[in-house]
Amino acid sequence: MTVRLYELCGADTERVFSPYAWRTRMALAHKGITPERIPVRFIEKDKIAFSNQKLVPVLVDGDKVVTDSWAIASHLAEAYPKGPALFGSPVALGTARFVNDWANTNVNAALFPLILMDVFNCLDAANQAYFRESREKRFGMTLEQFAADRDRKLPAFRAALAPARTTLGAQPFLAGDQPAYADYILFGNFMWAKCTSPLQLLEKDDPVYAWRDRLLSRFDGMAAKAKGFPV
Amino acid sequence: MTVRLYELCGADTERVFSPYAWRTRMALAHKGITPERIPVRFIEKDKIAFSNQKLVPVLVDGDKVVTDSWAIASHLAEAYPKGPALFGSPVALGTARFVNDWANTNVNAALFPLILMDVFNCLDAANQAYFRESREKRFGMTLEQFAADRDRKLPAFRAALAPARTTLGAQPFLAGDQPAYADYILFGNFMWAKCTSPLQLLEKDDPVYAWRDRLLSRFDGMAAKAKGFPV
Repeated sequence: MTVRLYELCGADTERVFSPYAWRTRMALAHKGITPERIPVRFIEKDKIAFSNQKLVPVLVDGDKVVTDSWAIASHLAEAYPKGPALFGSPVALGTARFVNDWANTNVNAALFPLILMDVFNCLDAANQAYFRESREKRFGMTLEQFAADRDRKLPAFRAALAPARTTLGAQPFLAGDQPAYADYILFGNFMWAKCTSPLQLLEKDDPVYAWRDRLLSRFDGMAAKAKGFPV
Repeated sequence: MTVRLYELCGADTERVFSPYAWRTRMALAHKGITPERIPVRFIEKDKIAFSNQKLVPVLVDGDKVVTDSWAIASHLAEAYPKGPALFGSPVALGTARFVNDWANTNVNAALFPLILMDVFNCLDAANQAYFRESREKRFGMTLEQFAADRDRKLPAFRAALAPARTTLGAQPFLAGDQPAYADYILFGNFMWAKCTSPLQLLEKDDPVYAWRDRLLSRFDGMAAKAKGFPV
């Protein structure tokens, strides 16, 4: 049965750049599923009108339509119990939700100003106009103001990773000895950056750097080969 | 077999006020274990000299000496597999370590200035002298400077809880439907505060407030009845 994944992309449809799409991509690969992918640009939301909401990723699995990356991961864990576990137990699922909320809150907020203009530059003119208008309304300032002084903001991003850094200094993955969905959550944030921005977010001696490398090379280097910038 | 727990206390030995001791207390209660408790004040570290290190809590379980609250939790999960799980799977254990590192980094740092002087006031004169000297050296400033303007710092503490707040808005415990060690980690921070400080850390409509109440009432209200202040 074909699994279809609608995911956010730039002017180049190979450039997939939502942290949430990447969480889903990694979760699917973890389960050995290669989806049929349907790229969706910001102003092409008519493509996902059938899902009765406006956010990507959207997963269509048989006759089931699942929206929201967290709900998609929960669906995959339930619908595909065989193979390596994305969570593995109710407690692991509950605790991974905390990681999800941490990454959405602390990491996204610290990362967005760093890569905002690079994201913008990955869009075609029509999508740039949409992006500028919607984001400037949300931020209450221009894109350029929101993204100003990114070198000064980089230390705050690295500081936001402090708990993950400590964990990854003690074990190879956030989920322990092997990666699981908790890892793909934070990794999704990094893929959002890698696909859009040449900015070097991490120092080479950071345990988070080595962890990111381990995940880049997973699944035959799926993430490493993705359209984006070297890290 | 008797399990002995050496734990940090104030002038009143009933006042147990280390976040780490509380994590261990809750983990023991989760496993239905009532330890023999040995209170240890800051300047009574000779009581734990046998552990070849200077930090409490120390758990003595038969002929096994375990130090560090994280190691104690891992030991309990392994040595007492029966009954409700503290982790439940390798992935849950790995992910709980991240919660531990998050609480130690983000939550402790935001909480310490708020309750520092209250902690100080729970000590007798000799322990106050030790506490002042060691902490002022660590902070590079006086206790009073470190603790200044706590009303101004309270919003930062509440903001540090943002990811937990989101998670606890979606499920009753950090570990899901039932509490597990991930919950006791953060709860330990709150017990550190409750045992030492009358400061009201949370607003009543905060999902974290309701979660704290649920844990206060667990184990026949063990934590609610502990020597400390109302919350």
